[in-house]
Amino acid sequence: MANFPQAIEIVEEGPREGFQIEPGPIPTAAKIELIDALSNTGVRTIQVASFVNPKAVPGWADADEVVAGFTPKLGVTYSAIWFNTKGLERAIAHRGRLANVGAISLSASEAFSLRNLHRDFAGQRAAMTEHVRTHVTAGIPVERLIIMASFGCNFSGEVKPEAVVSTIADGLAIAADNRVSIRSVSLADSMGWCSPYGVARLVDAVRNRWPDLTLSLHLHDTRGLGIASAYEGLRLGVTQFDAAVAGLGGCPFAGQPGAPGNIATEELVLLAQELGIETGINLDALLEAGRLAEHILGHRLPSSLLRSGPLTAFRKRD
Amino acid sequence: MANFPQAIEIVEEGPREGFQIEPGPIPTAAKIELIDALSNTGVRTIQVASFVNPKAVPGWADADEVVAGFTPKLGVTYSAIWFNTKGLERAIAHRGRLANVGAISLSASEAFSLRNLHRDFAGQRAAMTEHVRTHVTAGIPVERLIIMASFGCNFSGEVKPEAVVSTIADGLAIAADNRVSIRSVSLADSMGWCSPYGVARLVDAVRNRWPDLTLSLHLHDTRGLGIASAYEGLRLGVTQFDAAVAGLGGCPFAGQPGAPGNIATEELVLLAQELGIETGINLDALLEAGRLAEHILGHRLPSSLLRSGPLTAFRKRD
Repeated sequence: MANFPQAIEIVEEGPREGFQIEPGPIPTAAKIELIDALSNTGVRTIQVASFVNPKAVPGWADADEVVAGFTPKLGVTYSAIWFNTKGLERAIAHRGRLANVGAISLSASEAFSLRNLHRDFAGQRAAMTEHVRTHVTAGIPVERLIIMASFGCNFSGEVKPEAVVSTIADGLAIAADNRVSIRSVSLADSMGWCSPYGVARLVDAVRNRWPDLTLSLHLHDTRGLGIASAYEGLRLGVTQFDAAVAGLGGCPFAGQPGAPGNIATEELVLLAQELGIETGINLDALLEAGRLAEHILGHRLPSSLLRSGPLTAFRKRD
Repeated sequence: MANFPQAIEIVEEGPREGFQIEPGPIPTAAKIELIDALSNTGVRTIQVASFVNPKAVPGWADADEVVAGFTPKLGVTYSAIWFNTKGLERAIAHRGRLANVGAISLSASEAFSLRNLHRDFAGQRAAMTEHVRTHVTAGIPVERLIIMASFGCNFSGEVKPEAVVSTIADGLAIAADNRVSIRSVSLADSMGWCSPYGVARLVDAVRNRWPDLTLSLHLHDTRGLGIASAYEGLRLGVTQFDAAVAGLGGCPFAGQPGAPGNIATEELVLLAQELGIETGINLDALLEAGRLAEHILGHRLPSSLLRSGPLTAFRKRD
């Protein structure tokens, strides 16, 4: 039986995801303009920047300027991500503007972690234990557990649900050892392997072990199955989704050139609307932000809905 | 409960759909090359041409040459479409190469029919009655019933399931009156309104009235929900789908410029593969045909999978 939620929370990751992978350079002012446009769509959480090493991700060399420059809107939560103490310190410096919540990020594929972070499973557990301790010391909560490569890995092939379950167990143990409470577990399709079957199988396996865990899906539309996978998530009652306006983004570490980005927020919103599921987002405003993203980047982005437009105007002819 | 089929039949409509809407002119030899490439993918039915008035659809002015030129492959059924006696006569002239099976095409939206064919509901019933009689006289079977605008209409708004059910009843009555047997009913999303919810609601309504009718889904990916809608169809046990390699196509009469095409065959095949549903199609060969289609047309086509490639090579690393 389908178990559709009444409402879902969408985290808009377009700025963070998009600006990290686009060839750029993209003017800081343009990044700020997109964030401000997104603030007026009704989306409740926007990931606005990544505090990473500018040598690794040149697109985010101006993260501090972007965070200092956007206009916060009441009711919208702005977040950023970071992977080390230096990044955390940069985020803390913006504490008035950013909701600083840390995450434990673990890869369910050892090959992916080895390749990109030079850490085996034991190494990533040790690194994340250290990472959590730094947060505790700094007084920053750690509330999310992100499982990278939850659906498959371009370096090692299929990732079995058991590997994801075991990685979640690792993350929850690190949290428990350090007395932090994980509020949601994000199943991240870092390399575009998701399918409806993959979502069903994984959500089932995770719920079997932890029936009450709040799950979040971070899906890429690399192979055209992103929205169908999100639909399966909705059917199973998943209530949290990451998405990126216009389908911006894509993982720069996926080992696949030109990997298309996240599922497009507007297509997820349309899917939800058609199912009678609340998102709080105004689709017309979101499409306008999507057109702005295309204008800023100077090329077509993957979203089909951005091209065709919503059904609203046609519906009025009823 | 999901009721996935073990196998599905996919009708490849890329040539017919694509060449009717692309600005062109596309050389006849290139059209033939694509059909021949598709013949080697394992797809069992290919719609190779449209016998229509070249003034209305200039892209198919060379339909006779295309049909005379491709190399038929054993085990593949080649079909064409037509809408009037003249078209039927042209198809009959190719009887050795084409499996000539007629269709009753009715629009569930009166506005769409009025706009494009200048016929109201009574007018389209009369025209289709005449159309069937012509087939009977010519000894050509009529086996398909196609319901255009099954999910919504850009000229009149939402199309309710009751309207589709009533249009199917019209079509079945025309068939019965003329003693022809309809083998499948195609629910066609002529204008890109489909959503998983729309599919579920419509399939349910039709089955409620005719539990044993074989249904086929003809979906467009205009708004990014095409593959998710096909997935819902699979869940409900639908066994026949139209699709177009690389996502070629789009209805030239949809009243929407640049309306993206049909769901991409390769994305449907991947979806089915991941669910363990047989299609008989070799995905690598199909992607090669998709790349050929892009080469012929000289621009990017909508399929994401065409860009990213299948998972096969990555899986081998297991």
